[in-house]
Amino acid sequence: MEAEHPQRKSAEDTVESGKFVLDLTDRSTIITPMNPPLDTLDRILKSASELMYSRSYADVGVAAICEHAGVKKGSFYHFFPSKRDLTLAVLDKSYIDMKENMLDAVFASDIPPLERLLRFAETAYEFNKAVAQDTGQVLGCPFGNLAIELSTQEEAIRLKLERIFKKLNANIRQVLQDAVDAGDLKDINIDATAQAMIAYFEGCTLLAKVHNDVEVLRTLLPQVAQIRIPAQQL
Amino acid sequence: MEAEHPQRKSAEDTVESGKFVLDLTDRSTIITPMNPPLDTLDRILKSASELMYSRSYADVGVAAICEHAGVKKGSFYHFFPSKRDLTLAVLDKSYIDMKENMLDAVFASDIPPLERLLRFAETAYEFNKAVAQDTGQVLGCPFGNLAIELSTQEEAIRLKLERIFKKLNANIRQVLQDAVDAGDLKDINIDATAQAMIAYFEGCTLLAKVHNDVEVLRTLLPQVAQIRIPAQQL
Repeated sequence: MEAEHPQRKSAEDTVESGKFVLDLTDRSTIITPMNPPLDTLDRILKSASELMYSRSYADVGVAAICEHAGVKKGSFYHFFPSKRDLTLAVLDKSYIDMKENMLDAVFASDIPPLERLLRFAETAYEFNKAVAQDTGQVLGCPFGNLAIELSTQEEAIRLKLERIFKKLNANIRQVLQDAVDAGDLKDINIDATAQAMIAYFEGCTLLAKVHNDVEVLRTLLPQVAQIRIPAQQL
Repeated sequence: MEAEHPQRKSAEDTVESGKFVLDLTDRSTIITPMNPPLDTLDRILKSASELMYSRSYADVGVAAICEHAGVKKGSFYHFFPSKRDLTLAVLDKSYIDMKENMLDAVFASDIPPLERLLRFAETAYEFNKAVAQDTGQVLGCPFGNLAIELSTQEEAIRLKLERIFKKLNANIRQVLQDAVDAGDLKDINIDATAQAMIAYFEGCTLLAKVHNDVEVLRTLLPQVAQIRIPAQQL
């Protein structure tokens, strides 16, 4: 049984907790199945993620997501009150996927710290190359894309993206701290240098997208390991 | 007298040539005034530029632009067949404005080459700061914003933006060539270093937008002058 009425349940709770509860605060009493069809939710998230990444947030409506996912609108609104709530869930899932499939391996401490940054650069290039071969277009960074499109319009999405960028910053800070501890770096502002490195990554990805040329990343990204913000600057 | 029927005149011709001619290729014969109301065109361009910059391309429709500009839809379609054509004209005008009001002064050869990059960084910070004080939000780079939002969807706009980024690259290449000639730099790939510097600018602006904190630019941007892509890398 699917509820036609959108539940006022936060998308973040839905995805991050991984469980579903009866929402007694809703005006109408809706019985939510205790074992909901998770594959439906997965299909909605996957379709929304793919469509928004290849096009944009604004260009992809709920109807298009439902059609792509092969689900009815009632199912969609069973999980998400709105496209914005869906997008918050997509961002959570995309970050978790990126962490488990990429960041954890890229930033593993099996090689010297600054070489991890080169591995990050190489992985980002290979990812964008694979996407470009698949779609014919450089699609850029899924997080940077939504950050640019929505930061001035959807504060909840901006805040979610800000938290994701801070987590990425923490990853790179750890690399830099390891490099300082190993004596490979000194006199740098670790937090600002991590920010500068992320900025460089995002900007290279933007240029690759506007030139529709993934080789921009191959040329530019490895230089990320040379960026320093000196400690005394601030 | 205003034509209600959209003329199939390219927006680029309209703006870049600064003149208006009778379009005899149109199916209906439309008498276009030889001295059209330029202030109407200016208001449309200014409104579109402001609204798209503070929100996004998709979020701003022709109706909203006309209302903001105080013009009728008939006037809009007198100048532009579509929002896409308008946007091409907005980009031309925005680039010309940026060049005349900022780039020509920033890259003037009155100070040593690498100091011009610091002047560029300072000017970009001050511009974003003024916008943020005015609107309460960091809006980012008007070119980078549209590049991210539209590159995969509107090829004509991507190509226009690509040309604008190439012009900016030429400005920075000149700075780097001057630095090489002055003996301040050596063994760099000038074109790739210019690309890397633009990437860094755009990425810093993206982070300032997602954190809604213009001080990110003050901290990070001056480091642009230290970026190098070595000649032997490629």
